[in-house]
Amino acid sequence: MPRIQPALELTQVTEWADGTVHRIEDHLAAEEPLEIRIDGKPLTVTMRTPGHDEELAAGFLWTEGLIESASQISQIRRLAPAGAAKDNIVSVEFGDRSFQPEELQRNFFAASSCGICGKASIEAIRVRGLTPPNPHFQIDPDLLCELPVRLRNRQQVFGRTGGLHAAALFDEAGELLVLREDIGRHNAVDKIVGWALMKALLPLSNCIMMVSGRGGFEIIQKSLAAGIPVLACVSAPSSLAVKLAREMSLTLIGFLRDRRFVIYSNPERCLPKSASNT
Amino acid sequence: MPRIQPALELTQVTEWADGTVHRIEDHLAAEEPLEIRIDGKPLTVTMRTPGHDEELAAGFLWTEGLIESASQISQIRRLAPAGAAKDNIVSVEFGDRSFQPEELQRNFFAASSCGICGKASIEAIRVRGLTPPNPHFQIDPDLLCELPVRLRNRQQVFGRTGGLHAAALFDEAGELLVLREDIGRHNAVDKIVGWALMKALLPLSNCIMMVSGRGGFEIIQKSLAAGIPVLACVSAPSSLAVKLAREMSLTLIGFLRDRRFVIYSNPERCLPKSASNT
Repeated sequence: MPRIQPALELTQVTEWADGTVHRIEDHLAAEEPLEIRIDGKPLTVTMRTPGHDEELAAGFLWTEGLIESASQISQIRRLAPAGAAKDNIVSVEFGDRSFQPEELQRNFFAASSCGICGKASIEAIRVRGLTPPNPHFQIDPDLLCELPVRLRNRQQVFGRTGGLHAAALFDEAGELLVLREDIGRHNAVDKIVGWALMKALLPLSNCIMMVSGRGGFEIIQKSLAAGIPVLACVSAPSSLAVKLAREMSLTLIGFLRDRRFVIYSNPERCLPKSASNT
Repeated sequence: MPRIQPALELTQVTEWADGTVHRIEDHLAAEEPLEIRIDGKPLTVTMRTPGHDEELAAGFLWTEGLIESASQISQIRRLAPAGAAKDNIVSVEFGDRSFQPEELQRNFFAASSCGICGKASIEAIRVRGLTPPNPHFQIDPDLLCELPVRLRNRQQVFGRTGGLHAAALFDEAGELLVLREDIGRHNAVDKIVGWALMKALLPLSNCIMMVSGRGGFEIIQKSLAAGIPVLACVSAPSSLAVKLAREMSLTLIGFLRDRRFVIYSNPERCLPKSASNT
């Protein structure tokens, strides 16, 4: 299939519409495996939308608790030129020789191995030593309501395919700092965290993360790892997402649409104190 | 949070609606980790919606290519009574003593470890020896258009939470055989395949699978493992899903809504021959 841009492919399909059949061209959201290696050794494979792969690798290592500082990474390199057939491997090189990739890999797999199924309990989060994000951060509810429109206006691929999740990072004034689209919502979040890591912006103590669709446990986990105080979802959060957000005092917002939203935890960051208890 | 049914929890939340703040009760889709063990040894952890856990474990083993026959399983047992605090472990006991869980676990992790990120290439699918599904299966386009309504009518949890994916299996007459809802679409599919495995219905050569939302690589992979000839998604498929469907001659349908759908591969199963080439 022709690749129009890294995240988009074009293909011939058959459309059936009320009994009429046409051959049409259709855009598809690109999905390909990315293998992340540590010092040349395979760590994991994730299905992702190509683009910003270095950010994805860096963000994944950070949000999964495998590195504690950007300085641990000496280099992130692709094993093939962008666009090449084998352009699905990124190797993260560690400067610190005391770091044992085998040990890391074993722990990583032992705790299960990806953002979706991994680190599968609140207990594991506690053990990792994540701390509650900035308690003083405030966001105005009216400003919050504008974020979905700002996100959608910047989504490049979704409109043509209907097939990509998005995550976006906003500052306290509601300015969009970065947006990433990916077939996996967790990858979009990792790409944003990796972007912040590589720009030395972590922790994101004065930022709001917004994700398209639903918010599950792993999205909260990754947001906490990045120090984000407010996470907003367009759709519903899960029960475990709410429990983790409450335990870690992250403000979790769901169903953010038009002029309405639901606050699942720590409403004080987006409501004046007087309104919190009505 | 009170558990209303396995898949649903109730909690107090704060609703902000155009400047007015209320405390309301809200339903949440339940999400909890499930650990799948083989003969007592941990294999993987998946975040899932509780319910039909034995089906999930059996279906997961089948769709990931870890078992080849239902007879390999001598027993599937929960390690705690349903509803107990530790009710998140299912152990699959193998009758065959020649089976080596360590070996399986090693291969499984080596290929990466869950339905989302695992078996991350078409090459890996080829190696597994999956074969194209029933070429003679036919479904009428008008009947196909009725399936989304039948699925939605049977979704119990989604309407109250907006937070669950669904997968449903239909026979060639469009009768709904089984429906499963889960926070993970891949889990809903595995629960259906596990249901079929335990009822000795595999391969599902005369069935249609329908999933809410998008169709990614792993959903195609799991459908192929179950021998399903037609997979229909409410929303968009990914590029790799389309490639795999075409390579394996599975009929992949997307954007199935009202009286329209898009056929991405093998249209002959749902169009008369004369219509296929217009």
